[in-house]
Amino acid sequence: MNETHALIQSLQKKNDSKIVLLVADGLGGLPLQPGGMTELETARTPNLDALARRGTLGLSTPVIPGITPGSGPGHLGLFGYDPLEFQIGRGVLEALGIDFDLGPNDVAVRGNFCTLDAAGNISDRRAGRVSTAQAAPLCEKLDQIKIPGVEVFVRHVKEYRLVVVFRGEGLGGNVEDTDPQAVGVPPLDPVARDAAAEPTVKVAKEFLRQAREVLKNDSPANFLMLRGIAKRPAIPTFEEVYGTRAGAIAVYPMYRGLARLVNMDVLDAGQTLEDQCACLKKNWDKYDFFFMHFKYTDSTGEDGNFDAKVKRTEELDAAIPAITSLNPTVLIVTGDHSTPSKMKSHSWHPVPTLIAADTCRFDGSTAFGERQCQVGGLGQFPAKYLMPLAMAHAGRLEKFGA
Amino acid sequence: MNETHALIQSLQKKNDSKIVLLVADGLGGLPLQPGGMTELETARTPNLDALARRGTLGLSTPVIPGITPGSGPGHLGLFGYDPLEFQIGRGVLEALGIDFDLGPNDVAVRGNFCTLDAAGNISDRRAGRVSTAQAAPLCEKLDQIKIPGVEVFVRHVKEYRLVVVFRGEGLGGNVEDTDPQAVGVPPLDPVARDAAAEPTVKVAKEFLRQAREVLKNDSPANFLMLRGIAKRPAIPTFEEVYGTRAGAIAVYPMYRGLARLVNMDVLDAGQTLEDQCACLKKNWDKYDFFFMHFKYTDSTGEDGNFDAKVKRTEELDAAIPAITSLNPTVLIVTGDHSTPSKMKSHSWHPVPTLIAADTCRFDGSTAFGERQCQVGGLGQFPAKYLMPLAMAHAGRLEKFGA
Repeated sequence: MNETHALIQSLQKKNDSKIVLLVADGLGGLPLQPGGMTELETARTPNLDALARRGTLGLSTPVIPGITPGSGPGHLGLFGYDPLEFQIGRGVLEALGIDFDLGPNDVAVRGNFCTLDAAGNISDRRAGRVSTAQAAPLCEKLDQIKIPGVEVFVRHVKEYRLVVVFRGEGLGGNVEDTDPQAVGVPPLDPVARDAAAEPTVKVAKEFLRQAREVLKNDSPANFLMLRGIAKRPAIPTFEEVYGTRAGAIAVYPMYRGLARLVNMDVLDAGQTLEDQCACLKKNWDKYDFFFMHFKYTDSTGEDGNFDAKVKRTEELDAAIPAITSLNPTVLIVTGDHSTPSKMKSHSWHPVPTLIAADTCRFDGSTAFGERQCQVGGLGQFPAKYLMPLAMAHAGRLEKFGA
Repeated sequence: MNETHALIQSLQKKNDSKIVLLVADGLGGLPLQPGGMTELETARTPNLDALARRGTLGLSTPVIPGITPGSGPGHLGLFGYDPLEFQIGRGVLEALGIDFDLGPNDVAVRGNFCTLDAAGNISDRRAGRVSTAQAAPLCEKLDQIKIPGVEVFVRHVKEYRLVVVFRGEGLGGNVEDTDPQAVGVPPLDPVARDAAAEPTVKVAKEFLRQAREVLKNDSPANFLMLRGIAKRPAIPTFEEVYGTRAGAIAVYPMYRGLARLVNMDVLDAGQTLEDQCACLKKNWDKYDFFFMHFKYTDSTGEDGNFDAKVKRTEELDAAIPAITSLNPTVLIVTGDHSTPSKMKSHSWHPVPTLIAADTCRFDGSTAFGERQCQVGGLGQFPAKYLMPLAMAHAGRLEKFGA
């Protein structure tokens, strides 16, 4: 346990406070023109603005300035885990996202079905985006593969995506992708990046040898590539660090997986924001801390659709009363990173953050937006300190030292 | 010596500058209502406001965001010692605060007189807040206790509070409190938290055995409990790090003790702020650096008395001309932590900080208060960097690197 986690653990105390962390994925944005307004500033958000007036604003830095995080590092930071210290492989995230219960001897792999031509070169890296109906039975066939001394699990995710898990003693996770990120060339052989990964490479090679045989008569998915090969890192649980019972309310698998990584309970979120709010209400008495995830501020940003991101932000705003009606002690609204529609991608820009609690210092904010966050009372702070702040406002931390 | 201290030490240079660090304990506050003003913003502070106009403002974070410091960590941060690296036990602080000269073989203990009933259970954890007149002679009796191979010192502090010091080779400091924090149960036996503390536990048990005998006919203080058992940590002196002769002007023992911990000279502060200013003037030529401590912004905050904290802040303001008339090169006004009267306790909120010096960059501030500090030129910064800033403004640091 690192120094910050040990400190928090040593100071944690119980009470009946409730903390809600509402993550609007990719919340931060950019104006389309110099002097213009961002998506969040453009959106009509009366409920968030009311929270801003009684709360404190700021900008959080997910990793360090200039670094654009993926969803994994972005969320780990929000959960109070330094994303540079706790690095999570994509295979692990993918496995967690389909409710696969990863153990300490598991190496998780994100697999992609692909199409090989007669010469064994890749003609389509996603097997013509093969349908779920076609791909799922292939995963069942691959799941039958036997390798001596190792258990092999193959699970379908969606379309061309699958998860492979090798379970066995002494399997290191540090193996290169076999996807050459190009067509017209053969898939790469797995290569170990350290000595501990050598046994894993042997297993992966044998798996790929058998898989080629199993899939040889299928079309378009006649082979697969292995990516994001990784082990689940040793990570203290959310409850160990903070002493809170935490429930995650996320529609998308990736975010459920991230919550499961720190041992939050994954609740039945349903499909819509309305479902998520109903889930929050239903579970209100069972947990101290809730992580709610809203995907569409990110996906509209990735699409480069400024207006759609504005609209999705307004949709988020409309859900706020359902949360505040439960009277949370601390309500935090933030993002895991910025996704400016102008850039059609995640970005490094610091993320608008709002904390509403009775112990907030008034900072003069009148609305929730990037420019007010920039001069807000939280200043610019590393995202990993959001959780200590949440705990403090919830009255869940003792004084440090005499 | 850590990296920062080694850096400062390598760059330190002498000149005839004077630095005054005025610490208003618990200075930071909260408005009672969203949109309202804090205690500092409410107070009429023409002298501090004049300093703000020629200086630079900011907010300092005592430990990390969300962590509420006690006086020890709060002051160590201001003195430039990372409070997470240098952790000071309460017994040590208490001993330093009564001018007890702790050596490297000393284990210091904060003692509380208590009342035991006929069955040996605690009926009052503070011995009915026994008077100083009654308790002081009891300490003299306890001071006579002899334990082979160890020197024992017992010193009275105030009312039910005393200090016990065990001096001897090989005494570890890592011992649990004997105060069960409850009445109706007997005091706890001392318990070692590591092997080095085992000899100390033996000594403490023998001391308590004899103390029970010594005090058995006294009332209400017929026993004592041991708390905050600790050794003085290895800590580089203020003069080693900064090369300044430092004098401390504090009315309360705790703060004199904190200054002594880093080897400042403790000056005769008198009883009032006026006395402290007279002391400053008298010693002006003898020191390069002065730490002045004002307690009442904290104690009124702890009392939950917003108006009284405002009044005490105005009292502090009225003392500023006596300081500025001496023309310090650098005058810093800050707190060791926030103590919002709304919360009646220390808090984690960042602390208003003002640096006035001829080398300040103008930041547009017009008054000293939390909201102006929030957008001030110092930004939000870890308190441990205040001393390097003070040294820089005093012209006491060489350029780093060529």
